[in-house]
Amino acid sequence: MTADLLRDLTDDEARAALLKWAAVPPGAIPAWVAEMDYAPPQQVTDAVVAAVRAGRTAYAHTSATDAEGDGSDTDVVARAFAGFAARRWPSGDPASLGWTPTTAATTLAGDVTAALRIVFRHLVPAGPVVVPTPCYPPFLAFLDLVGREVVTIPTDPDATRVGLDLDRVEAAFAAGARGLLLCSPHNPLGRAWTRGELTDLARLAERHGARVVADEVHGPLTLPGATFTPYLDVDPRGVAVGSASKTFNVPGLRCAFVSAPADGDTARLRALPTAENDGPSRLGVAAAEAAFTHGDAWLDALLVRLDAQRTQLGDLLAAHLPQARWRPFEATYLAWLDLRAYGVADPAAAARAAGAWPAPGHDYAPGLDGHVRLNVATTPERLEQLVVRIARGLGA
Amino acid sequence: MTADLLRDLTDDEARAALLKWAAVPPGAIPAWVAEMDYAPPQQVTDAVVAAVRAGRTAYAHTSATDAEGDGSDTDVVARAFAGFAARRWPSGDPASLGWTPTTAATTLAGDVTAALRIVFRHLVPAGPVVVPTPCYPPFLAFLDLVGREVVTIPTDPDATRVGLDLDRVEAAFAAGARGLLLCSPHNPLGRAWTRGELTDLARLAERHGARVVADEVHGPLTLPGATFTPYLDVDPRGVAVGSASKTFNVPGLRCAFVSAPADGDTARLRALPTAENDGPSRLGVAAAEAAFTHGDAWLDALLVRLDAQRTQLGDLLAAHLPQARWRPFEATYLAWLDLRAYGVADPAAAARAAGAWPAPGHDYAPGLDGHVRLNVATTPERLEQLVVRIARGLGA
Repeated sequence: MTADLLRDLTDDEARAALLKWAAVPPGAIPAWVAEMDYAPPQQVTDAVVAAVRAGRTAYAHTSATDAEGDGSDTDVVARAFAGFAARRWPSGDPASLGWTPTTAATTLAGDVTAALRIVFRHLVPAGPVVVPTPCYPPFLAFLDLVGREVVTIPTDPDATRVGLDLDRVEAAFAAGARGLLLCSPHNPLGRAWTRGELTDLARLAERHGARVVADEVHGPLTLPGATFTPYLDVDPRGVAVGSASKTFNVPGLRCAFVSAPADGDTARLRALPTAENDGPSRLGVAAAEAAFTHGDAWLDALLVRLDAQRTQLGDLLAAHLPQARWRPFEATYLAWLDLRAYGVADPAAAARAAGAWPAPGHDYAPGLDGHVRLNVATTPERLEQLVVRIARGLGA
Repeated sequence: MTADLLRDLTDDEARAALLKWAAVPPGAIPAWVAEMDYAPPQQVTDAVVAAVRAGRTAYAHTSATDAEGDGSDTDVVARAFAGFAARRWPSGDPASLGWTPTTAATTLAGDVTAALRIVFRHLVPAGPVVVPTPCYPPFLAFLDLVGREVVTIPTDPDATRVGLDLDRVEAAFAAGARGLLLCSPHNPLGRAWTRGELTDLARLAERHGARVVADEVHGPLTLPGATFTPYLDVDPRGVAVGSASKTFNVPGLRCAFVSAPADGDTARLRALPTAENDGPSRLGVAAAEAAFTHGDAWLDALLVRLDAQRTQLGDLLAAHLPQARWRPFEATYLAWLDLRAYGVADPAAAARAAGAWPAPGHDYAPGLDGHVRLNVATTPERLEQLVVRIARGLGA
């Protein structure tokens, strides 16, 4: 019944709507760009249409006050997200800080990367920044852009379970790093970090005067079997970035938000000139409001589907790529596949030749061969074809 | 007849749609932010609604090829703009370079400021940048952000006619400046620079190995009595930035474009990582396509209205603020008013106390007292009230 809420796009619809499809040759099945082959929730579409019809096509009205209920776009997004967080991530844990999103601690930005740019430029003390890898490629690009040296902490591709390597994080902090960019849940590793892991990281950061910035854009995409812990629920000095973009398939609508409750942080971000924080679109604000207010049932249906796609992927790998190794993702719709056993340095290129387009693993982990990131947010039929074609491309 | 195409927003509609209205107290009449109190063209609204309904809410498909007709979002915008430019700015001048927008020379960006950021970072040789003032305040902020020293060339507020002060530009180039940021037509001075002025500037830049970057977002808003000359029609080494945003009242839809025909320029911009050029929204692309393809009749009606508002402003100033000095703007919908005769350092603040919100002149010309920028893109009734209230605020 709830599954009816989720509408699969046809090939033609997907090709007209999504970059993932528009940029591949006819006949190929794309699984690279992190877009889903599903229509956004009807309420989100309707809200954006209503905003367009009302002429909300000009500049966003970001908050100049700290008042809940000031009616600004900042306030609209913060309050909708607060309701969503309270419903989806209630914390009964005795160690919880009881953090909740507020207008006063929220700053809007155009997208997650733009938000991270201003956070690292203005809120994170000078010094290198730690980034566990594999990682979303723009992480390294934007840190370079804001003049930060990056200390990568590569994940052992042979580890049975991927954790935060706190020993190496501590060594980096001891050597002078003063920031850590945490993808939480993690793209492309699929981990939903536990409260314990996050608490240990927060303690380490505090001890060294470093700050942790959490990209939580995948938080709502935590799947059955795992729990999402908002980083600000364990670290009052932390900064989190979120958006409705990834969860509700509206990344082109331009609205992300920074949650920065520590003293002075939000004031500093809000004081930035427009030229540095070009900001969100009001259509993105309308989408975020509708998604966080009315999107729960659609999201539940999505999570059911993604859970099923995850199970199916396991079956397909066993059948067609038996030497593939993977750790089923706990969150996101992105699988990180270790295909080294097939002896192909660039399996994504081999797969493309066979009509399947996963993303090359070396884009996420520079220097690491034999991996791909596979986007499973599609139909079961396309997912099967993807795995069959990757196997064909690898000669498996 | 064509005037019927232009629909005035009611106070309630404007308050719901525009930042200009949302951020002022009830009862006040805003004339600061450069938004117009008119609904965008119906075809633009319809095109954006159709794009939302088709799920074009994810990432933009920017061009990876130089081919006209490659179907990318870059191509869609470039071709629509090329048609618009050919219809609106035909050049019969024998000195014309015959420039025309092409897909191969176009790069999309999120907005004009974002576009200028990447242009100055990557296409303009190292060295200070010349900016005539008064200027749009984000010009100074973004140049600071990209680490450029700024050489301002203040305009003499007592000059009868404002020109490009080429002697001082030449002195700045001779002293090492290697870029000039030209607002063309000019905000807030309202000048539509002549072909002769632009040609002289281009020669000067070439002689000194400097590059001129033209912000042409107001080009289509050139009013009866003046002619817009695209900068690239006089300077093959130039770079121009444009957007449908300002002309068609959709600045929140996030789509600007860089035209950079000189060898290698566009390849350089297209190679930038996503993190540096977060890029346009597909809804902005849809709006630009519709506006540049179907917006001519609406734009003609708009120009008739703005011409009338300009005439009305002259009459109102004569009646209520007889000591005000101004040069009727040749383009834009922004009047630069010299109110020094009333002896008030910050006339915008005085006007606000009386319920009219022009923009403070010192935001555009740091250190210059007694000026305001007045946005006339509203109804005749509101414009009258604005002038009456400014006069009251100044005790005139």
